[in-house]
Amino acid sequence: MTSYEEEIQEHRLETFQTRRPTVFELEEILFEMIPILDHGFIRLIDYMGNDSAIVQAARVSYGRGTKKVSEDKRLINYLIRHRHSTPFEMCEIKFHVKMPIFIARHWLRHRTASVNEYSARYSILDREFYIPDPGQLASQSLQNKQGREEVLKGEEAARVLQILKEDSARCYDHYEEMLNEHEDGTVIDPHRQGLTRELARMNLPVNCYTQFYWKIDLHNFMHFLSLRGDGHAQYEIRVYAQKMLEILKLWVPFTYDAFMKYRLEGALLSRDGLKTLKKILKGERVSQEESGLSKGEWRELGNMLEVTLEEKN
Amino acid sequence: MTSYEEEIQEHRLETFQTRRPTVFELEEILFEMIPILDHGFIRLIDYMGNDSAIVQAARVSYGRGTKKVSEDKRLINYLIRHRHSTPFEMCEIKFHVKMPIFIARHWLRHRTASVNEYSARYSILDREFYIPDPGQLASQSLQNKQGREEVLKGEEAARVLQILKEDSARCYDHYEEMLNEHEDGTVIDPHRQGLTRELARMNLPVNCYTQFYWKIDLHNFMHFLSLRGDGHAQYEIRVYAQKMLEILKLWVPFTYDAFMKYRLEGALLSRDGLKTLKKILKGERVSQEESGLSKGEWRELGNMLEVTLEEKN
Amino acid sequence: MTSYEEEIQEHRLETFQTRRPTVFELEEILFEMIPILDHGFIRLIDYMGNDSAIVQAARVSYGRGTKKVSEDKRLINYLIRHRHSTPFEMCEIKFHVKMPIFIARHWLRHRTASVNEYSARYSILDREFYIPDPGQLASQSLQNKQGREEVLKGEEAARVLQILKEDSARCYDHYEEMLNEHEDGTVIDPHRQGLTRELARMNLPVNCYTQFYWKIDLHNFMHFLSLRGDGHAQYEIRVYAQKMLEILKLWVPFTYDAFMKYRLEGALLSRDGLKTLKKILKGERVSQEESGLSKGEWRELGNMLEVTLEEKN
Amino acid sequence: MTSYEEEIQEHRLETFQTRRPTVFELEEILFEMIPILDHGFIRLIDYMGNDSAIVQAARVSYGRGTKKVSEDKRLINYLIRHRHSTPFEMCEIKFHVKMPIFIARHWLRHRTASVNEYSARYSILDREFYIPDPGQLASQSLQNKQGREEVLKGEEAARVLQILKEDSARCYDHYEEMLNEHEDGTVIDPHRQGLTRELARMNLPVNCYTQFYWKIDLHNFMHFLSLRGDGHAQYEIRVYAQKMLEILKLWVPFTYDAFMKYRLEGALLSRDGLKTLKKILKGERVSQEESGLSKGEWRELGNMLEVTLEEKN
Repeated sequence: MTSYEEEIQEHRLETFQTRRPTVFELEEILFEMIPILDHGFIRLIDYMGNDSAIVQAARVSYGRGTKKVSEDKRLINYLIRHRHSTPFEMCEIKFHVKMPIFIARHWLRHRTASVNEYSARYSILDREFYIPDPGQLASQSLQNKQGREEVLKGEEAARVLQILKEDSARCYDHYEEMLNEHEDGTVIDPHRQGLTRELARMNLPVNCYTQFYWKIDLHNFMHFLSLRGDGHAQYEIRVYAQKMLEILKLWVPFTYDAFMKYRLEGALLSRDGLKTLKKILKGERVSQEESGLSKGEWRELGNMLEVTLEEKN
Repeated sequence: MTSYEEEIQEHRLETFQTRRPTVFELEEILFEMIPILDHGFIRLIDYMGNDSAIVQAARVSYGRGTKKVSEDKRLINYLIRHRHSTPFEMCEIKFHVKMPIFIARHWLRHRTASVNEYSARYSILDREFYIPDPGQLASQSLQNKQGREEVLKGEEAARVLQILKEDSARCYDHYEEMLNEHEDGTVIDPHRQGLTRELARMNLPVNCYTQFYWKIDLHNFMHFLSLRGDGHAQYEIRVYAQKMLEILKLWVPFTYDAFMKYRLEGALLSRDGLKTLKKILKGERVSQEESGLSKGEWRELGNMLEVTLEEKN
Repeated sequence: MTSYEEEIQEHRLETFQTRRPTVFELEEILFEMIPILDHGFIRLIDYMGNDSAIVQAARVSYGRGTKKVSEDKRLINYLIRHRHSTPFEMCEIKFHVKMPIFIARHWLRHRTASVNEYSARYSILDREFYIPDPGQLASQSLQNKQGREEVLKGEEAARVLQILKEDSARCYDHYEEMLNEHEDGTVIDPHRQGLTRELARMNLPVNCYTQFYWKIDLHNFMHFLSLRGDGHAQYEIRVYAQKMLEILKLWVPFTYDAFMKYRLEGALLSRDGLKTLKKILKGERVSQEESGLSKGEWRELGNMLEVTLEEKN
Repeated sequence: MTSYEEEIQEHRLETFQTRRPTVFELEEILFEMIPILDHGFIRLIDYMGNDSAIVQAARVSYGRGTKKVSEDKRLINYLIRHRHSTPFEMCEIKFHVKMPIFIARHWLRHRTASVNEYSARYSILDREFYIPDPGQLASQSLQNKQGREEVLKGEEAARVLQILKEDSARCYDHYEEMLNEHEDGTVIDPHRQGLTRELARMNLPVNCYTQFYWKIDLHNFMHFLSLRGDGHAQYEIRVYAQKMLEILKLWVPFTYDAFMKYRLEGALLSRDGLKTLKKILKGERVSQEESGLSKGEWRELGNMLEVTLEEKN
């Protein structure tokens, strides 16, 4: 057991009495390290509120929101469906997360969360770099400039892994050399001065791991999950979002159901998509040219509805 | 005991086991109604974090932040003094508040909080209006366009109270008449249609009470308190802020101390104020004309330092 | 011509040379008062950017965004369709608006805009109150607690108008009396002290007009318009949003088109709505009970698709 | 002249007529590239408002804010001094900036701005890396864990530069090899697949340059400048902030003056600092032990006031 694990275990042992809304399923996993990628993790640190706290705020009520469980569920469905976001801001969740810098760069573009990141101006970073599984080493998609296509084959994949491993290791060796300090803080050569941390760090590649505390309200958390848990998000951030979706389900099960039903698994129809659909339902002839839809939209509409739409050209 | 009080008492009886940071002093007052003004109140509904959670986030640590209590205190002083705000965003507090509409209008100009307000489009408002204590009925300040001066004398004060009470009562009577409904929902005249709520409400004056759930992080909470707890804030909002300052002290005592020391009871010197001060300390002659300070600033500097600064003109 | 109108005309006469993106259609209406309701208005004060500035930011390009107009249009469609919001934050618009207080209360719940409101602590408010057109005096909807139903009939409508007019006038008279000042600042009785403005204002009902400067970026502006221009928004705020939609069309015509196509006139399908739709298209039997949709959702799906969905019970 | 420069020059040639507030000093530098560090730059892209627009919003006025220039100046001083921030939100500025990734990571922690960054998922990054001037290669400060001390001497400095240059070049070579593409997009080996861009980028160190469009309102801009232009900020971000301070001065000269006077060159006194100061002014004896100030604060107070405060131990 590492010292980290001991610290966490110790922290998990203490319990207190509280009158606040409490979710047993979350208490179970509080502070535990959930591993993601090769060196990353998610740790649930704290939470505020539950499904019933959403109802309580929506009703501006004196006691707890709950009258009947079925009414609570109905109200939450209504709120999600009609995009009433303020009651969901009344719940809050806090994590400790660790991830490669290039993923943290995406993550931190969400401006509606609170963040405390580990400072490489102040401390020495760990010797930890993200090296993908060979199964994740995909070639560039030609259709989607932000996507992946088929997996790299043998020799090319091996070369990529070799480059990533060697460059990470060399860059970190040089980071230590410039600092004139090892990862554990021991001085390398007492006759040298050592470069200041805020500069030495700049030799580290963006697959180096960073970590931060992250706190967000439930409304913005769902927005984050809908973007980063989506199939268009990069794999390396999606795995974090997917694990967080499981935590969402434990935390606020009614909200999770409504979120899946009306957001993640719902679909958006454009004005011209809706017009086309109505014609189809009336048995009228439709064509891409007259629909107002682009060829791409025409194809996507067909896929969404699982019907074959005639294509010319 | 009203039904509200029963609901609250019932809510207060249940307790749960939690691993989350817990503050006993806040648990004591959770859900209780703290009366403010004639019909207003503050109720603490929930909180996340404590002094130690701030330290934990600032250090991005695995276990609890605390090493030694004295170190925690020192770190919190450092963070407040150097305006490192992000660790204080890691704590959150939620209230149920009731206040006159004209005060809510000030309050809700703070955009960094989450709010769920009671809807007068949807529900009938209570027959409750703010009528000031005679001791609060002050005349307009001539120096400060936003301030109060001396208290109104007998007859004029009596007339003001009469106006406020009569107009409030009449406006509410007419509100009910237009709705064709009483406060308790009973219909007045079954032969009339009744004006829609979203319009009828517009006859109510802004001393009518409204209520909302309000959630804010500790950093923004302190910013709110520093503005609304200040002597320049209108009395009717200051009384809320002052009560909340007491709750801040119970919640995060180290942060409260640092906040008082470096913010609320500290002082700001302008460049020219600092220059003047240095001259005084060196025993040099100073004059308002040469100082770069306006007459008002000159006077305020003297008051702040408790010295008599020479004034000509 | 009032003094306001003269000030505005004078302001409109001056022009300058600029290298900034400039929209002729907006220059035409800059500073002009566009009347809304009985005493309200919208005045366009300033703007930053145009369709091409969105493209330029999305491409992080050196010159102007535009390559070909058709490519710009396609990119803007793509950005709106896939909810890429950041390029739309690169444009900004500023208005001077005047509206009844109860509408301003809704308006200012949008926290992502900048606001400077006329202060009734500092200045005396104008004697202006919103009195609805008789055609707007609707009864309470029984189905939708936030809505209106049929228009009030003769006598009841007349009584409502009488109440609103008389109470507004009386409350304003008493406001002046408590202030011991008329609207134009003349003192009423030199032997009285006059109540401070920050208190006297509380006798004014929420149909009294207020005014503010309001600045918002294009992304948040569209969000505001999609909520407040919607049929579910209260009529008195919708009329402002509708006028602003016309200004949006003048300002960024490509963005306006995409916004209409993919947002305002599009539709959202829930997971179970989509499932039901696929069954219909495959010619399978569907029933509300088995669909996972509530009765209300079932009805709305039928309306949206313009098909008759079987209903039992 | 590179193609970038041509694009910029072309863009600068066009001018338009506008009624909007226009600042000639900013028009002069619009779109021009202001070089910072070895490959970075700032380019002013657009602006909204000027000193007079702040006054206009603060007064919620119909015409332009200006009555007399001296009154405008006084009002702006008042607003800055009393931390009235909303009128300063009424102005907006937009830049195109290029900087090393490790600096962008600090920069983008400011959440109140709008950002569009060049995407390395989508495009290939340029072969540009920050290599510090030898005069910037400082050793780690022992007192301030986030600071720099004396400059590295000959051999050690040379070794650091060698490492940074070689590792940057090698990492970029390998980036191209993994992509199977050169910087200009030509394919290296048609028989290889090439790793997807969103993964290949992860071999690049954080001294690699990135670029983005950045838009912020004047209030938040000043907050950014007060933090990032401060002596405690890392040199590599401070050089950007300092250049932006010069642009602030051109844009809103009255606001700039007030900002310097009351913020950047002012000083903050803690409660106990103020208490100590009053004693000194009264000629009373003071000691660190009784002052409530820590040793560090005691020393800083002496430095700030340019007096020698007695220190014991």
